[in-house]
Amino acid sequence: MSCPPRARDAGFACGSLPAGTLNSIADVPGVRVGHRTLVDGDIRTGVTAIVPHGGNLYREKPIAAVHVLNGFGKSAGLVQVEELGTLETPILLTNTLSVGTCCTALVRHAVENNPDIGRETATVNPVVFECNDGYLNDIQALAVTEADARAALERASPQFEGGSVGAGCGMSTFGFKGGIGSSSRRLDLDGRSFHLGVLVLSNFGRPGDLRLPGGKVVGPSKAAMDEKAAEKGSIIIIAATDIPLTDRQLKRVIRRSGVGLARLGAFWGHGSGDIALGFTTANILSHDEKADLVNLRILNECRIDRLFEAMADATQEAVLDALVAAGSITGRDGHHRPGLVGALKSLTTET
Amino acid sequence: MSCPPRARDAGFACGSLPAGTLNSIADVPGVRVGHRTLVDGDIRTGVTAIVPHGGNLYREKPIAAVHVLNGFGKSAGLVQVEELGTLETPILLTNTLSVGTCCTALVRHAVENNPDIGRETATVNPVVFECNDGYLNDIQALAVTEADARAALERASPQFEGGSVGAGCGMSTFGFKGGIGSSSRRLDLDGRSFHLGVLVLSNFGRPGDLRLPGGKVVGPSKAAMDEKAAEKGSIIIIAATDIPLTDRQLKRVIRRSGVGLARLGAFWGHGSGDIALGFTTANILSHDEKADLVNLRILNECRIDRLFEAMADATQEAVLDALVAAGSITGRDGHHRPGLVGALKSLTTET
Amino acid sequence: MSCPPRARDAGFACGSLPAGTLNSIADVPGVRVGHRTLVDGDIRTGVTAIVPHGGNLYREKPIAAVHVLNGFGKSAGLVQVEELGTLETPILLTNTLSVGTCCTALVRHAVENNPDIGRETATVNPVVFECNDGYLNDIQALAVTEADARAALERASPQFEGGSVGAGCGMSTFGFKGGIGSSSRRLDLDGRSFHLGVLVLSNFGRPGDLRLPGGKVVGPSKAAMDEKAAEKGSIIIIAATDIPLTDRQLKRVIRRSGVGLARLGAFWGHGSGDIALGFTTANILSHDEKADLVNLRILNECRIDRLFEAMADATQEAVLDALVAAGSITGRDGHHRPGLVGALKSLTTET
Amino acid sequence: MSCPPRARDAGFACGSLPAGTLNSIADVPGVRVGHRTLVDGDIRTGVTAIVPHGGNLYREKPIAAVHVLNGFGKSAGLVQVEELGTLETPILLTNTLSVGTCCTALVRHAVENNPDIGRETATVNPVVFECNDGYLNDIQALAVTEADARAALERASPQFEGGSVGAGCGMSTFGFKGGIGSSSRRLDLDGRSFHLGVLVLSNFGRPGDLRLPGGKVVGPSKAAMDEKAAEKGSIIIIAATDIPLTDRQLKRVIRRSGVGLARLGAFWGHGSGDIALGFTTANILSHDEKADLVNLRILNECRIDRLFEAMADATQEAVLDALVAAGSITGRDGHHRPGLVGALKSLTTET
Repeated sequence: MSCPPRARDAGFACGSLPAGTLNSIADVPGVRVGHRTLVDGDIRTGVTAIVPHGGNLYREKPIAAVHVLNGFGKSAGLVQVEELGTLETPILLTNTLSVGTCCTALVRHAVENNPDIGRETATVNPVVFECNDGYLNDIQALAVTEADARAALERASPQFEGGSVGAGCGMSTFGFKGGIGSSSRRLDLDGRSFHLGVLVLSNFGRPGDLRLPGGKVVGPSKAAMDEKAAEKGSIIIIAATDIPLTDRQLKRVIRRSGVGLARLGAFWGHGSGDIALGFTTANILSHDEKADLVNLRILNECRIDRLFEAMADATQEAVLDALVAAGSITGRDGHHRPGLVGALKSLTTET
Repeated sequence: MSCPPRARDAGFACGSLPAGTLNSIADVPGVRVGHRTLVDGDIRTGVTAIVPHGGNLYREKPIAAVHVLNGFGKSAGLVQVEELGTLETPILLTNTLSVGTCCTALVRHAVENNPDIGRETATVNPVVFECNDGYLNDIQALAVTEADARAALERASPQFEGGSVGAGCGMSTFGFKGGIGSSSRRLDLDGRSFHLGVLVLSNFGRPGDLRLPGGKVVGPSKAAMDEKAAEKGSIIIIAATDIPLTDRQLKRVIRRSGVGLARLGAFWGHGSGDIALGFTTANILSHDEKADLVNLRILNECRIDRLFEAMADATQEAVLDALVAAGSITGRDGHHRPGLVGALKSLTTET
Repeated sequence: MSCPPRARDAGFACGSLPAGTLNSIADVPGVRVGHRTLVDGDIRTGVTAIVPHGGNLYREKPIAAVHVLNGFGKSAGLVQVEELGTLETPILLTNTLSVGTCCTALVRHAVENNPDIGRETATVNPVVFECNDGYLNDIQALAVTEADARAALERASPQFEGGSVGAGCGMSTFGFKGGIGSSSRRLDLDGRSFHLGVLVLSNFGRPGDLRLPGGKVVGPSKAAMDEKAAEKGSIIIIAATDIPLTDRQLKRVIRRSGVGLARLGAFWGHGSGDIALGFTTANILSHDEKADLVNLRILNECRIDRLFEAMADATQEAVLDALVAAGSITGRDGHHRPGLVGALKSLTTET
Repeated sequence: MSCPPRARDAGFACGSLPAGTLNSIADVPGVRVGHRTLVDGDIRTGVTAIVPHGGNLYREKPIAAVHVLNGFGKSAGLVQVEELGTLETPILLTNTLSVGTCCTALVRHAVENNPDIGRETATVNPVVFECNDGYLNDIQALAVTEADARAALERASPQFEGGSVGAGCGMSTFGFKGGIGSSSRRLDLDGRSFHLGVLVLSNFGRPGDLRLPGGKVVGPSKAAMDEKAAEKGSIIIIAATDIPLTDRQLKRVIRRSGVGLARLGAFWGHGSGDIALGFTTANILSHDEKADLVNLRILNECRIDRLFEAMADATQEAVLDALVAAGSITGRDGHHRPGLVGALKSLTTET
């Protein structure tokens, strides 16, 4: 496969902190991402799976947190993450109307691996996020099947593509083609290197509002601008880290995803379901814990500004990464989204 | 059909406010409830639908609010209700692992009635609540289908049964057979009568903790007590009213469901997903509103104590209503839950 | 001093868990309580200080959490506790209009002990809670001075009285004389004994709504009932423990104070500022921490039901403790509150 | 008096929506602002009062909302605004350690105008916000008196200065002198003009992080950069509007203040208490309301993006307004903050 370009290939780097080797969420050891992309007739959609670690997630639950920037969204599983501060399934991303199918797929996956679910032990909380790809995709077709969700899970790997893949297949961003993007930052604590990685499903922003690093404002052609009023986007931000944090600390960190979005020109629009989830692989709680009291490591909160900065920078760059990786696409009813890179080239040529 | 007994048939009435004519959520004009019950082999489960009004809910959205008493639960659709303060689908109740299927059913139902969803207009937020019926039901079978959800919607009526019906088929409460219960209170405001109605899907409480009105503590037999540690319950509380309220006022009101549960002997246990949703049929917001500013009526907040009291009383009585309506049931692997009424009779006989 | 009676002296014990030796918040090692009581003319008010440990609280911050049951209240300092999950001053309780004065007193106290505050290091977050004692006290007189707050702090001791003392001097509960009450529960974890202690400033409940353990409903005389509509109460619940918890776990625990209040007959009335704060002395975070990462111990969440039960029981009993300890009092403009014990005796005599 | 320059005098205008005539919070009819500035020896501090309307605020309460962007702050009165969605006193801004004094001043002011407070009716909820001016001001001196707070209230006028005045006297922003700034936007709804106005107490941002509109990054000299680690800022954002909104709508609008801050280069740092409050003069609830049900007008939520944009733009410009209005100041122990305008001029000269 020939990999799509990355944000830095187009000259976009955000902030002054160093990126990880892969400059992706997979710089956090153990984190893997898999896609299932559906392109057929008017279908432009799919599923993306983020798998926090290689073990049994129901048995070994990472500490996690969610933050809702703007809640015009239909994601599932947030209530329990909020209450308990843990994650117990992989995370699936998909289109809005396929959340139910992906929930069921995660339930079956968990039951297969944990036959005591709903019998000798509790049930399971599937975590599924969504954006509305209805502009490019025939979202009413409910094209995603449980098998598609399963395929995304099975393909999970530290090496994964961005752009118009998986759940990103039919997404739009500031009037350009959006989709999946990722970025990471390296942070040193107590003399050891850690990472904070971000993956976005980017489908937000009004055409004409995009600001590139340096301040340049870029918009698609007039035709795209006309549908401004009809824009119904969303962005999902998944953050992973191997820094030991509590769920409260994680929540504070992922809240700064909003800074990255604002720098790009967004104001967290009414119709946009902007939701962030973060997890740490450094604090895993056992479902079968025998002890009454357990040990945890946490961050000295006075050091948290570095993570805030990393979160803002990596979110901003992950969106640009999605924009750069996604080429132009024509979908349902001839609806078209230009790629950012092509648009920038033609702007350069004009000058 | 011979209707199961109600709480008051067993002598249980809570508080001093008058009940509505039906003493159910359907005392709020327009509200209907439908069940689809599944009993087959080890299957003891189902779906219950609450339909807020007779119109197109996506077009005419009731003001609504949610409150999470304890978030160990997997209900769907809460994020958007929290952000926007409105409801745009009927409410479905089912078992924990069938939430995904019911979400998809609500999506298809909404799209059928609103072909512009996901095309010319936004997507739709399905609202589905759940409890874990795994003790009596083979929950891993995922027995609920989209057709079952549809059947519950189609059967919605102001006349409906309680007890072991619909989503309540396999539920347990304080070691007794639980399920669906309902109650209402009448309130006079500005010289007019209004109602607050509650419907519960009752599946919570440790065996031995139940307190009846008057203070009597009642428990099932020793055998049931032994599984005390393994108890994994939940309760869903749906409140409807025709009193005009804002979403903030509704949220304050439904929070008092926790008072009703505490009076019954519960302490909102760790493993219990205790969640309340309320809506008012008096404030409907149009999806297609043309005006920039719209009128609303709201409650003078100084009068809200009456609604708090009504909410606490009706929640308490709705749970007792579920307990009284549900007879004893044997389900998966011979698991058994005695009915409260039978248990009380044998206690009386003993004395 | 002759100590006022305790809840158990009047035969009131709540739940089945064992109480600590003192059956007070001071069963948590290091926790001390001090009162400054003001009785003069129409003045019936005061200050109560809860000191979490014997060290410098600004330097050694206990993990803490707040939960607002009903936010019709004017307490100060909650925003930062919510964000950071720590406490950095002693806790002061007082009347509603004296919160400002007590904040300033805590600021001066912290600055004296930490001359770098507001210069080389951050400022300080004073935590002050309040109830409205305006029925018995001339609250408009703003009688509490900074010196009074200081006096309460200086008198802090593991031995302290309950009833009409300190901030409890002018408080009312269900139409009876209320005030300060306390209770504790002992819990064994990993083979070691721990405590959860509760102290309440009790000033809530409509006359006639009080339910004693066992279910008996008790009200004051008709005269007191007449002012029912005018009732404007509040209750502050402070929980201390030496069980290691995160702030999220603490928040879940203290939320169960609402169960205790509901068992007593309250429905968390509109006009009542019902607020809980909890802290653990087992997890102290250093203001001057040099390491980037620090160790914490936390509870295996599957054991948290015991703490929920302890919190509900201890809150319920602490309110009864306040009611039993407080004798009848006449205050401002001849306003009178009967003591519960006397009222119960006369009821017994009548029978 | 010679008025200090405004943001637009320095060429800074944010966004494309039109500003109001005054381009200040006072474009909302009835809103007035007053300052009391204290400069004496090492004292550089003060009080700023925002008065929502000309009537008795305790009797006629504007609908209001708060949003905490980052809760490392000590502001008072938020709990009740969150619960009830109303404001019942003027808003005072001051330094962190003077919150208590300003609370007491507001209490006395309310009691004077409403002698039934704490007697025949409820108590009063003073709303006071703060930033830490300890770098330029001897904050430990607690220099602000109740008389100073009263003076700020009495001087309230639609005409008011920005910069180093009132609570802004000793504040810093991105290493430059900060303080009070304001801006407004005009919005047309149903054919009528409305305004959204913002006033900030600006004391946030790391030196070197400031981005001007257009993308230019500006920092103070190296000396100022050295104290980067020690930065302990905060920003308070007060929004007023005459658009009819519910408290939930207001909360959604003021949350977008975070967008304005992010555009300026901030990431809502750990040590920064970033808090927003909004109120509407179009929905006033009477303390003495006799009817059970009352009328309200609210915004068609589909129009709210305009308000989001206005909030982001006005917040961004209000901070720039503070930076432009404030000249350079030397305060406690010779600590110095350069003015932005002077710094920009010297940059221009260098080129």
